Parts: sequence; structure tokens; C-alpha cells
Amino acid sequence: MTITYTLDVSKSRFSSFGKLLLRWRGSLWKSVYRELFFWLAMYSMLSCSYRLLLNDEQKIVFENISEFCYKYTDFIPLTFILGFFVSLVVNRWWDMFNNIGWIDNIALYIAAYIEGVEDDVRMTRRNIIRYLVLVQAMVFRDISPPIRLRFPTMNSMQEAGFLSQTDIAALDSVESPHAKYWLPIHWAMMLISKAREGGHMKNDGMVMDLYNRLREYRIGLNALCCYDWVPVPLVYTQVVFLTVRFYFLLALMGRQYITTERNLNVKSPIDLYFPVVTVIQFLFYMGWMKVAEALLNPFGSDEDDFEVNYLLDRNLQVGMTIVDGAIGSLPDQEKDQFWH
Amino acid sequence: MTITYTLDVSKSRFSSFGKLLLRWRGSLWKSVYRELFFWLAMYSMLSCSYRLLLNDEQKIVFENISEFCYKYTDFIPLTFILGFFVSLVVNRWWDMFNNIGWIDNIALYIAAYIEGVEDDVRMTRRNIIRYLVLVQAMVFRDISPPIRLRFPTMNSMQEAGFLSQTDIAALDSVESPHAKYWLPIHWAMMLISKAREGGHMKNDGMVMDLYNRLREYRIGLNALCCYDWVPVPLVYTQVVFLTVRFYFLLALMGRQYITTERNLNVKSPIDLYFPVVTVIQFLFYMGWMKVAEALLNPFGSDEDDFEVNYLLDRNLQVGMTIVDGAIGSLPDQEKDQFWH
Amino acid sequence: MTITYTLDVSKSRFSSFGKLLLRWRGSLWKSVYRELFFWLAMYSMLSCSYRLLLNDEQKIVFENISEFCYKYTDFIPLTFILGFFVSLVVNRWWDMFNNIGWIDNIALYIAAYIEGVEDDVRMTRRNIIRYLVLVQAMVFRDISPPIRLRFPTMNSMQEAGFLSQTDIAALDSVESPHAKYWLPIHWAMMLISKAREGGHMKNDGMVMDLYNRLREYRIGLNALCCYDWVPVPLVYTQVVFLTVRFYFLLALMGRQYITTERNLNVKSPIDLYFPVVTVIQFLFYMGWMKVAEALLNPFGSDEDDFEVNYLLDRNLQVGMTIVDGAIGSLPDQEKDQFWH
Amino acid sequence: MTITYTLDVSKSRFSSFGKLLLRWRGSLWKSVYRELFFWLAMYSMLSCSYRLLLNDEQKIVFENISEFCYKYTDFIPLTFILGFFVSLVVNRWWDMFNNIGWIDNIALYIAAYIEGVEDDVRMTRRNIIRYLVLVQAMVFRDISPPIRLRFPTMNSMQEAGFLSQTDIAALDSVESPHAKYWLPIHWAMMLISKAREGGHMKNDGMVMDLYNRLREYRIGLNALCCYDWVPVPLVYTQVVFLTVRFYFLLALMGRQYITTERNLNVKSPIDLYFPVVTVIQFLFYMGWMKVAEALLNPFGSDEDDFEVNYLLDRNLQVGMTIVDGAIGSLPDQEKDQFWH
Amino acid sequence: MTITYTLDVSKSRFSSFGKLLLRWRGSLWKSVYRELFFWLAMYSMLSCSYRLLLNDEQKIVFENISEFCYKYTDFIPLTFILGFFVSLVVNRWWDMFNNIGWIDNIALYIAAYIEGVEDDVRMTRRNIIRYLVLVQAMVFRDISPPIRLRFPTMNSMQEAGFLSQTDIAALDSVESPHAKYWLPIHWAMMLISKAREGGHMKNDGMVMDLYNRLREYRIGLNALCCYDWVPVPLVYTQVVFLTVRFYFLLALMGRQYITTERNLNVKSPIDLYFPVVTVIQFLFYMGWMKVAEALLNPFGSDEDDFEVNYLLDRNLQVGMTIVDGAIGSLPDQEKDQFWH
Repeated sequence: MTITYTLDVSKSRFSSFGKLLLRWRGSLWKSVYRELFFWLAMYSMLSCSYRLLLNDEQKIVFENISEFCYKYTDFIPLTFILGFFVSLVVNRWWDMFNNIGWIDNIALYIAAYIEGVEDDVRMTRRNIIRYLVLVQAMVFRDISPPIRLRFPTMNSMQEAGFLSQTDIAALDSVESPHAKYWLPIHWAMMLISKAREGGHMKNDGMVMDLYNRLREYRIGLNALCCYDWVPVPLVYTQVVFLTVRFYFLLALMGRQYITTERNLNVKSPIDLYFPVVTVIQFLFYMGWMKVAEALLNPFGSDEDDFEVNYLLDRNLQVGMTIVDGAIGSLPDQEKDQFWH
Repeated sequence: MTITYTLDVSKSRFSSFGKLLLRWRGSLWKSVYRELFFWLAMYSMLSCSYRLLLNDEQKIVFENISEFCYKYTDFIPLTFILGFFVSLVVNRWWDMFNNIGWIDNIALYIAAYIEGVEDDVRMTRRNIIRYLVLVQAMVFRDISPPIRLRFPTMNSMQEAGFLSQTDIAALDSVESPHAKYWLPIHWAMMLISKAREGGHMKNDGMVMDLYNRLREYRIGLNALCCYDWVPVPLVYTQVVFLTVRFYFLLALMGRQYITTERNLNVKSPIDLYFPVVTVIQFLFYMGWMKVAEALLNPFGSDEDDFEVNYLLDRNLQVGMTIVDGAIGSLPDQEKDQFWH
Repeated sequence: MTITYTLDVSKSRFSSFGKLLLRWRGSLWKSVYRELFFWLAMYSMLSCSYRLLLNDEQKIVFENISEFCYKYTDFIPLTFILGFFVSLVVNRWWDMFNNIGWIDNIALYIAAYIEGVEDDVRMTRRNIIRYLVLVQAMVFRDISPPIRLRFPTMNSMQEAGFLSQTDIAALDSVESPHAKYWLPIHWAMMLISKAREGGHMKNDGMVMDLYNRLREYRIGLNALCCYDWVPVPLVYTQVVFLTVRFYFLLALMGRQYITTERNLNVKSPIDLYFPVVTVIQFLFYMGWMKVAEALLNPFGSDEDDFEVNYLLDRNLQVGMTIVDGAIGSLPDQEKDQFWH
Repeated sequence: MTITYTLDVSKSRFSSFGKLLLRWRGSLWKSVYRELFFWLAMYSMLSCSYRLLLNDEQKIVFENISEFCYKYTDFIPLTFILGFFVSLVVNRWWDMFNNIGWIDNIALYIAAYIEGVEDDVRMTRRNIIRYLVLVQAMVFRDISPPIRLRFPTMNSMQEAGFLSQTDIAALDSVESPHAKYWLPIHWAMMLISKAREGGHMKNDGMVMDLYNRLREYRIGLNALCCYDWVPVPLVYTQVVFLTVRFYFLLALMGRQYITTERNLNVKSPIDLYFPVVTVIQFLFYMGWMKVAEALLNPFGSDEDDFEVNYLLDRNLQVGMTIVDGAIGSLPDQEKDQFWH
Repeated sequence: MTITYTLDVSKSRFSSFGKLLLRWRGSLWKSVYRELFFWLAMYSMLSCSYRLLLNDEQKIVFENISEFCYKYTDFIPLTFILGFFVSLVVNRWWDMFNNIGWIDNIALYIAAYIEGVEDDVRMTRRNIIRYLVLVQAMVFRDISPPIRLRFPTMNSMQEAGFLSQTDIAALDSVESPHAKYWLPIHWAMMLISKAREGGHMKNDGMVMDLYNRLREYRIGLNALCCYDWVPVPLVYTQVVFLTVRFYFLLALMGRQYITTERNLNVKSPIDLYFPVVTVIQFLFYMGWMKVAEALLNPFGSDEDDFEVNYLLDRNLQVGMTIVDGAIGSLPDQEKDQFWH
């Protein structure tokens, strides 16, 4: 579900910062608390062992390992790679969102170009909309697990009203080893062509204009498939995810509070028992990485993922209303207040 | 309100830098002074306690905590994450601004394509403009608190002349569970279609061209909705805002002037009482973050937010003037000065 | 004036580097020499005081302050914020340049579409060009101080031939509380429409095509106004400009050559009297910042600013030549050298 | 072969991270294991020599070299240059992918515009598709070694059905010292022109629209050629690749576990025998660089390279199905479930 | 000449890395070897002086200067500024390349739209191409020294067949104080207009479509002029180029091998005589800067510069072949292999 918090930041103020922090859904807290508790548990175990269980000789080994880890965490330049990686992922994510497909544009054009209130014209208009949303549903089924879950089979989509039994038969009648996302688009184009032949459209330019709208819509959906097919190279993702985890593995030992007389860099001026700063770092780095993790595939079921289910239903409903429900709703024209 | 200071920097000079700094509205000073005073108050309290209240033993603890904080502020890489985050936010902000919707283009086209000076043609032209500004107002109402405040109800919009009683009735007559931003666009398209049928437009190509202008306008407003619906992921925002605040929480202790004989890193060569450099850092980091905070939702009421109220009124006025007031203003054609 | 040095770098060579450095106009040297001399004067004063005037006790205070400044300049991450800020400013600057408005495209179209050599057709063509350059001049007057200086009143524009007395009257006759940049565009559209009605254009498609060219031109000029109206948020600019200055304020003390027996970090291995490296840093950081400062408003009178005055005159001259002077210049068609 | 792992990251969870790491194909592990083993072998040899073979004097030299290397690895700023370089390469890579050429759009248009079920119309439609895929195959042959391997000669392409003997003869009949990618496009345009003359297309606008689709397709393929012709400047690539390798050459000595009494920076608190952190760094930096290396030419045979072979076959098959197999597949129009 | 090495990196392998490194043309080695030898010569001279010529007192001064330089090289943040600068330059470079102008698109359109095999139609088609390439040649002459060298006068262009004596006369007959790049475009438009009047084009839409292609071509060439007219601000370039040089000037002293008993930071654990790491840094930073230096003006005669000479000839040849040589090359239509 998309997490909208725009209202909270409409005014940059002290309180708005508080409201922002205290959210739970889609928040930093929710996304890292499991890892953080796990890390803290490990940290405590090591800390307790060091303080209570180990003898002096073992303590020295422990301290040496700690010193070693402390010294070498510096060699891992997390900030940079996270910065570049998150930049890349955020760009892809937003580009995907821009291609997600709104029906409104096409619907408005269909309503304007294909005129008539007879049943067959209404059917034409409605079915074009239906076919377009059907393509979207077919694409989403292949790239989004929640949609796949909702529509495990074509029949489940039929029950939801996205297509009829006849449509399924027609879909199956065309043989192709490849995905048939283009077929309903083809049908929509055929319907438009027929509407022109039936005299419901004024001229060929409008046919071509409609085709163009369909093309834009299809290109958007195709882009989604491409983003799904060719993700950020696996090596890149692995490098980033691994490095962050390894950093905090080293930090498990390197950030222990060492109470020794020896002159070590790792020695802290005070023993706070709780690794305050490292927890902050954990929130910081893990949070930043979680941003990337959640946005890598925004068609999943993370909290920040796009609400594709909602979008499908909305597109069908709004599309139908535009091409059928709003025909003739134009109010009588009156002079406006500023008329002179 | 937008803060324009372009004139001050038209020449890069010493004095222009001064003028830039001495502004108050929309300035760094105004945006951070509250936090800065609060921070300084906390800092002074701690500083006074250390100097006046604590006994020697307590002082040592205080110094240790200070040393601890001093050492660990280094672990928080503010600059980087702020750089990447502000980059992202600034890009979104400018993209929103580019989609904010100017009526001029469409109005010029309407004035050129829909010809005639009879009342009904004038009404058609004026009402198309009105419907388009109405959509903008409807969208702004949903994404901008100041506009929501100005137009709490549809009736308040009617009083402002954006729509008539008949329009409200027509709006309500179309049933849809979703926002009806598309409806006035639909009406505008119907009006254009009628104008063509009534012979006030020369050919169908012009109808299609006008539709295209409307589409661009609508796409821009739709983009605004999308930016509002899907903000920068909450986790990212929280990570950045939290880290900056935590940094200065650590700095409260870590930048105290410590007057001890012990060999500590935190010990300053001189005791200036006032934390000069940290205040500079505060201005720097908090200021940078405030940029992001203010731009996150540019439709709010921050000083740097877009002047949407002004834009709505301007669009209505300018639109009306173009399609109605300026018709026939073409001066008599004369030979220019360079004629030969 | 724009500083073009492209020829010097057409070949990457040793000598080309020299030529690049030895320029004065628009150069690093010219843009920072004043600040640098000022800084060096301050530095010398402090340096002399330390060496000649202060007694031992005062020297110790001086050294402590110097040590303090030396230590804390590290806390100001200039490079990063400058990198991101200059990136942003350079992008805006180039985008402005891309929208600056060349008349050639439209003029070529007008010459091709509006046919005829009679006086009234020639007048139509010439006046369309004049109106378009007029809009540009009006916009530039509002965003560029040099143009405002050149054209303080509408009458001064009339003298320069951008508009006639009749045009001024027509401009004034349309009442609007807002800038009327759209009005000459409106006139140009009317003229095109009349040309079509008068039979000087072949079909309506060409009218629409010309309108489209006008629209692109207008959008570019509108973008310039937007860039002027909504600059980089003031806070951001202030943060950057202030930080750089403050850095060198600290460096005034922090980079003094300290000749003490005490063990200080600030102590330099040798006393060079002249702060070589800091001067380099000064050139580097101030120069980098000057890039941003000059590009923030490229319509000013800095040396690197766009030559808008030249552009206006050029647009008018070239536009007139294209639509009027070059008509009929097509050479007789001959077979080319490679004909076979 | 493209490595798709989008499903694994559809939900950001602990387990999804595990699944991501444990992949082999296209993974970090697979891309660096050879270099890593080689590096470890060298490291061990040096390590064993130091521990077992060298006498005390030699050990001191060894330790000095090690200290030297340890100290100077800091001077090589890998992270930054890798960040910028990978950014650049990833952008180019994605842009290439966007231009790779999908036949669907054009095919849908051809199916809609060129009407008729007679053999010659079907042949026209099919041959246009074939010519377009042929251009793609010709381009891919020149930029992609795997395709060159699959189609060493024109005759091998004929066998695969991309072109006929007549086509090859016609191709050869046009003399040009330059690549003839444009020729099949030219033929496709001729076929469209003929189809219009033969009355199979409704109007000239559709001809122009189809030409426009062809143009977009051709521009994409031309972009691929350009990317192949003008790669990232060689110097840049060499700098990056060399620096990374040199870094780990220094690390061979600089990260040895030194067991000396002397006060050296390189001395580790503990002797782990295995260079844990450096191996992590190796994975990190080499992995990051491998991303760039693999994406530099995405038309090669790396695991992350585009599946151009698949694309060619798919384009031919899907294209044929759209323009020929799906004609007449439009299901009978029925009222949808939501009809009222 | 463009350096293409794409084939070497089609597979990311050990050997491909070797092949990449061992190139000479356009390589890192070739671009920095002169500077490197010069630097090494200076370094050796200083090194020999220190070791052989100086007495003990002078050595101490030398060591102090060396220590000073060693300490202060850290203050120059090369990596960052180079990263941002190279990013900017690479973007501009690629954008220039994208606007360089390929004739194929227009030629294909001309071949399709202007029909006929009579001499005058062929002449029209050929001359349009010639005029377009002529514009390109005129623009390249002004921005590219190698082209200027090839065509010092208009007559030399005539000899190369780009224009005829009549054309030169016609060019000269139009008076304008500004560059006349638009004139051949104007002629091409006139020719198209005449072709339509002569009945060789089917409708006005095609005329407009061709104009549009010409416009795109002209906009690209105009962009090249703009990039030439308004380069990266000189200050920016100077800052970057100067800083890199100054860094290595400091390194001349700061990286000397100092053999002293005194406790200096600059002291190296071992004396290698040859400054290995600094040479690596030299390759790294100078190489990176050379990338920027070579790409700043890609129309020069560096090895990585665009092959504009080749492009001009190619455009003329390919353009002529498309509009004249390939007319009628369409093979007889046959059923394809997959027909069923």
C-alpha cells in the first residue's frame, strides 16, 4: 500500500517532524525493527560473554578481535555505494510509476470521438475500455505477485468482469509461444476501426489519434514488462546488500564496550552498555538500504509498493463512467459571473 | 509565497552577496532560528551545569560522555545522504512546478480556433476556460492545504466564480467512487465538439488539436496528483530527518568546551564559551535539510511553496482576457521601420 | 558576454592548457582576484600582528585560536555541497539557455507557408516575426537587467523598431492585471489566420502547424519566466555561499604559520610567509562557487551571462531576412557532380 | 542471458535476502570467483614466504614493503570513481535497452491500417514485418558477437527465414560503401506506398503514420549503432579498470598479517591468517567493477547481456502473428457484467 | 578518430581486460605519457639533488618543504571535483553526438514522398540532400578545426561537390550580418514546395511532414552551434585543470623518499627510489582529467573526437544512394518461409 504523508509535511515545522517520526506503517521503525532486535540480541550475547564468562586470557583475544573489527569497519565505504545505488533504484521506481497506466486519457478521447447512445456504440466504447484494462491486468498478473494471487487463472479474471467467456476463447484461439498482451489492444483497434466504418466517428484522423493514445498506453505497459525482465544487474544488488550486512557483522564485535587497561583504539571513554551510536548507524544504513530493497520491485506487497489492485479496479470503474455514465452530463451553458 | 531573489544575483559581486544574506523572508535565518535557539539553550544549560554545578567526579563523567559524543559524531555521514536526498527532492519539486498548469497555451488556441463574437460562442470559449481552471482548483483543493482552506466546500468555489450552481448539480449527477477531475475536462471537450458542429471551428483537425492541448494540461494535473499520492518513500525521509537531528543531539555534548588536564580529543585549544563552529555546522546542515523539508510538499504554506492561490486567480483572469477580452485587439498592419 | 574558448581545447595538448589559463576575460583570475586580495590583506595583517606586535602571552592566545580554527575547518564539508549545488545550477542554466528562443525555425516555416510577394503578404510575414521578437524583448525586459536598461520604456522599444505606436496603443487597450506576454502571440496567430483566409496559405493543416511552432516558442519563453519566478530556494543558495565564506574566515587564522615550541597540529614544518596552499584552495573553492554565482541568473551582466541583447537584434534581423529577404533566392537547379 | 530476480525481491524480507545471495547464475560469486582465487593464491604464497622462508633481515624488508603498501592504498579513491563510472555505464546500458526494438507497435499499426485477407495483402503485411526484423538482425550482427556467430553469412540468415534469395540479390544490387541498414526500411516504405496505391489503406494520413512508426524503430536501431561506434572513452575505462586492479595489487602486501615487535601501522591486533576484510573489499570493489564491465557492451555473451537472439526470433514470430494470425480474432461483442 | 573497443569488452573476462590495457591509440598511456615523463624528470632531478648535492642543512630545509607538501596535498579534494566535472562534460559530449545529424531519416522520407524518375525530380531529390549536407558542412566548418582545414574556402567545398558555383552566388546574394546556416534549409523547403506544386508529392500533409524532418535536422545542428557558442563556463574548466596540475606540483616534493632520523610523516618505510604509488595516482587523476579535456570539444582532432569528416562524406553518399540509387530496388514479393 502506498504510504502518503504529504499532508504532514505541507508546512515545515517542528510538529510536522514529530508526526512524521511517529508513524508506524511504512516507517523506518517497521522496516528495520526485526533486524535491529536480532542484531541487538547478538550484541548482548557477545557483550555478556565478555563481561561475565570469559577469563582474562580470553578477554584479551576478544579485545583483539574487537580492535581488529573496529579498525577495519572504516574500510567499507557504505555511504557512497548506497547513495549511488539508491539513486539508481529510485529513478527506476519513479519511471515505473510513470508508466503504470491511467485509463482517463483514453477514455476521455473515446467518449469524445465515438459518438452515439445506441446499445452497440455504448458496447463498443465499454468494451474498448474493458480490453485496455484487461491488458493491464494481464501484465500485472505476470509482474506482481499480489495480482497473481488475486487472479490465479483466466477464469478468475472473468469472474471479476475483466473479460467474458467469449474473450477467453478468442484469446486461446490465437496461437503464439509468447505473451499475448498485444491481442486485446488489437481488438480495441479493430473496434475503433469498425466504429469508424459504422459512421460513429467523424473522420479518419480521429481513428489515428485514438490509435496513438492506445500506443502510448501500450508502450507504458511494455516498459513495465521490460523493467521486470531486465532488473538492476544482480551483481550490483548483491554487492550492496551484502556490504551493508557485513558492515554490521563487523560492528557486532567492533563496537563492544571494552574495559581494559591496554591502549586500544576501540576503548570507549565511557561504558554505556547500550551501543547508542551504532544503533543510530543501524537505523541509518539499514533504513537507507530498505528504501532500495522495497523499491527494487514496486509491484510486490511491501507497504510502499504501488497499489496495483486498486488501480485495476479504479481504471475499470472510472473508464466505464467516462465512456458511458457521463455522456450527456454537460450542464446547460450560462454566462459566468465575470461576464460583461 | 515564492521567494524571488534573481535580481540580487544578476551580477555576481560583493554587494550582491550581502544583499542575499540580509534577507529575512524565505531565508536560512528564518527557517532555522527556532531550532538554533532551542539548541543553543540546551547547550548553554549543559555548559553551565558543567562549569558551575558539577563536582569533580561528575565532571569526569561529563567529560567522558563529551569525549564519547565527540568521537562518534564522525560516524554519521550527514553530507552524503543530504546531498543525494536534496538532489532527489529538488528534482521532484521542479518537476511538480513544471506540471503546475498554465492556461495561456490553451486559451490562445481556443481564441484562434473557436471564432465568433456572438454571445453563445463567447460563452463557449469562456466556459471552457472556466472548466479547465475548475479542474485545477479541484486538484489543488486535494493536494494543497491553503487551497482547501480557501475552498472548504464546492459552494465556496461557486462563490469565487469557478463554477455555477448548475455545474455543481451536474457534477453530483455523475456517480463515481473516485475523484471526478476528469469531468470538467469531459465537458470542455463536449463544448469544443459542439462548437465544431455549430460551425464555429473550421475543421476537425482543429478539434483534435484542441483536445491534444487539453490532454497535456490534464496530464500535468494528473502528475501533481501522482506526486501527492506517491511521495518520496517515508523511510528515506525519516532516515534523513532523524539522522540530522541525532547528529546535533550528539553535538550537544560532543562540542562542549572541556577544561581538563586529561588528554582528551574533545579538548579545545581555547575556551570560546560560544560554540562558533557548531553553530555554523548547524546553519549548514539544518539549512540544507530545511531545503528538502520545504520542497517535499511545495503545495503547502511554507514561504518557498508555490503560490497556487495566485495561480488559480491568474489563470481565470488571463484565460478570460485571452478568449474574450483580446478578441479584435489586433492593431492595423503597418510597414515596419526596416521595410525596404 | 559569453566566453567562448572551444577553439583552445579542440586539441588536448600542453599548449592548449596554457592558452586556457592565460585568459583574463571570464576567467577564474578575474572572478576571484578581488576577494583573494582582500583575503590576503587580512591574512597579512594578522600575520604581521602575530610576528611583530604581540607579546608572548598574546601569542599563545593567538596560537590557540589558530589551532582551534585549524582543527575545525575540517568540519565544514565544502566539496560535497558545492558539487551538488553546482550540478543543480549548471543544469538549470543550460535548460534556460535551451529555452532562450531562436526565431529561425518559425521564420523558415512562415517563409514556406505564407506565400506571396505583394506588400500585404510581406507585411504579414514581417509583422509576425516582429511580434514574436517583441514578446521575447518583453520577457527579457522583465528578467534581464541589461535589457531593462536598454529599454526602460515601451517607447524606447518602439524607437528600436520592435513595435509601432499603433501596437503600443493596442497593447494598452487590453486590460489585464497580469503581464501581457501572450498578446503579441495572439496577434501573430490572428495574422496567420487572416493569411489563410486571404488565400496565402494552402490549407488549414499549415495554419495548425504554424500555431504549433508559435506554441513551442512561447513555452520556451514561459519557461524563462518560471525560472526567474521560482529560483533555487534561497535557503540553499545562502547555505552554500555562507559556508564557503565562513570556511575562509576560519582559514584566516587557521592557516597562519605558527612558530612555537609547543606541540600544535597547526604548526607547519616550514615558514613560507605566503599561504601557498590556502591560496590554491581559495582559487579552487571560490572559483567553483563563482561558477554557481554567475550561472544563478544568466540573464544578468556577468561575463558568462547569455548575450540577450545580441540575440534580440539577431532574431529580428535574421527573421526579417528569412521571411522577406531570401524569398526567391533559390538557385537554378543543376545536376550535381556525382550525377550519373 | 538476462538474469531476472524480480520475484525474489517482491517482498523485502529476511528470506528474500537469503534467496538473493544464494543464486549462482549472474551472481557476484560467479563473476569474481576466478579473480578472488587467483588473488588469494598470491596472498597465501606471500604469507607463507613471510612466515616460513624469510630470515629476520628479509622479514624487516617484507614488513617495510607491507607498511608502505598499507599506507598508500589510502591514496587511491576507488569508491568515487567507481560510483561515477558505474552511473554512466548503467545509464548507457539502460538507454541501449530502451532502443532495442520491439516489433509489436508497428505490427499492430500494420494490422490495423493495411486491410485485406487476399494473399498479396497478407504478403505485403508479412514482408514489411520481415524486412523490419531483417534490419534488426543486420544491426545486431554488427554489434553483437553471439548474433554474428549465429549468422556468419547472409545465407545463414536466409536459412533462418529472415530474407529470401531475391532479397539478397536486391540488397547486393544497391552499391554503397556504407552499411545498408536503411535498405529494408526503404523497401518497407515502398510496400506501404504500394498498399495505399492498391487501395488497401484508407488514406494518406495512415501512410504517413506508418512511416513515422518505422522512423522511430529505425532511430532506435541507429542509436544502438551509435552506442557501439562511440563507446565510453577508452581512457576512462582504462583508468577505472586499472585502478581497481592496482589497488588489490598493493593490498597483496599491505594486508599481510605482520607479527613484529616494531611499531607499524600495518600490524593487526590479531593474526587471522585469512584476510577476511580484504576479501570483503575484494567482493565489494571487484563486484562493483564487474557490473560496469558486464554492462559496457550488453550485446556480448555475458550472463547479464540482453537476449538478442531470443528477441530476433520473438519479433519475427510475434510480428507475423499480429499482422496475419490474429486478423479476424475479434470476439463477438457482448454486454459486459457491469452493463446497466 | 573515434576509438571503438566494444568488441574487446563483449565478454567480461581476464583476457579482455588485457586487450583493453594493451591498446595504444586513444589509450590512457598515449594521453598522459608526455606529462608523466616530464613529471618524472622533474621528480628525479629533485630526488638526485636531495641525495647527492645537498648538505645536511639544506637537506633539512628540503625535508621540511617535503613534509609541508605531503601534509597539504590532502587539502585538495581532486576526486570530487573531477567526478562532478567529468559527469557534466560527458553528458554534454553525448548530447552533442546525438545532435550530430544523420541524413538517413530525411533521405528515406524524401525517397518515399517525392516520386518520379524523371531528371528534374531526381535532381530535386538529390539537391535537397546536397543542401542538407551543405548546412552540416557549413556548421562543421565553424565549429571543427579539421573541417575548417579541409574546407578553407567556399570554393574548396564546391570542388568537393557540396555546392555549385550557382549556389555560391545565391548564398552571397542574400545579405545578412549573421551566419546563413538557414539558407540551404530554406532552399530545400522551396524545392519540396515546388515538388508538391509539380505534382510529384501526393498531398500537403507530406510536405508538412518533410518540413518537420528538416526542422529536426536543423535543430540538431543548431544545438551543435549552441554547444560551441556557450561552453562549460571557463572558470569551471580552469578550476579543475589548475587544481589537478597543482596537486602534482605539490606531489613533486611531497612524495620524495626522505631518509632522515627525524620523526616526519612524509618518511616512507622503505626507499623505492621510484614513486610507484604517485605514478599510479598520476595515471588515475591525469587520465580522468584527460577524459574531460578530450571531450570538452569533441569536434577537434583528438583521437576520441567525432569523425566529422567521415560523417560528411558518408551523409552525402548514403543520402544520394537512398534518394536516387535505390529507387526501384524493391525485390519481387514472395511468400516467406513461414507462410501457411
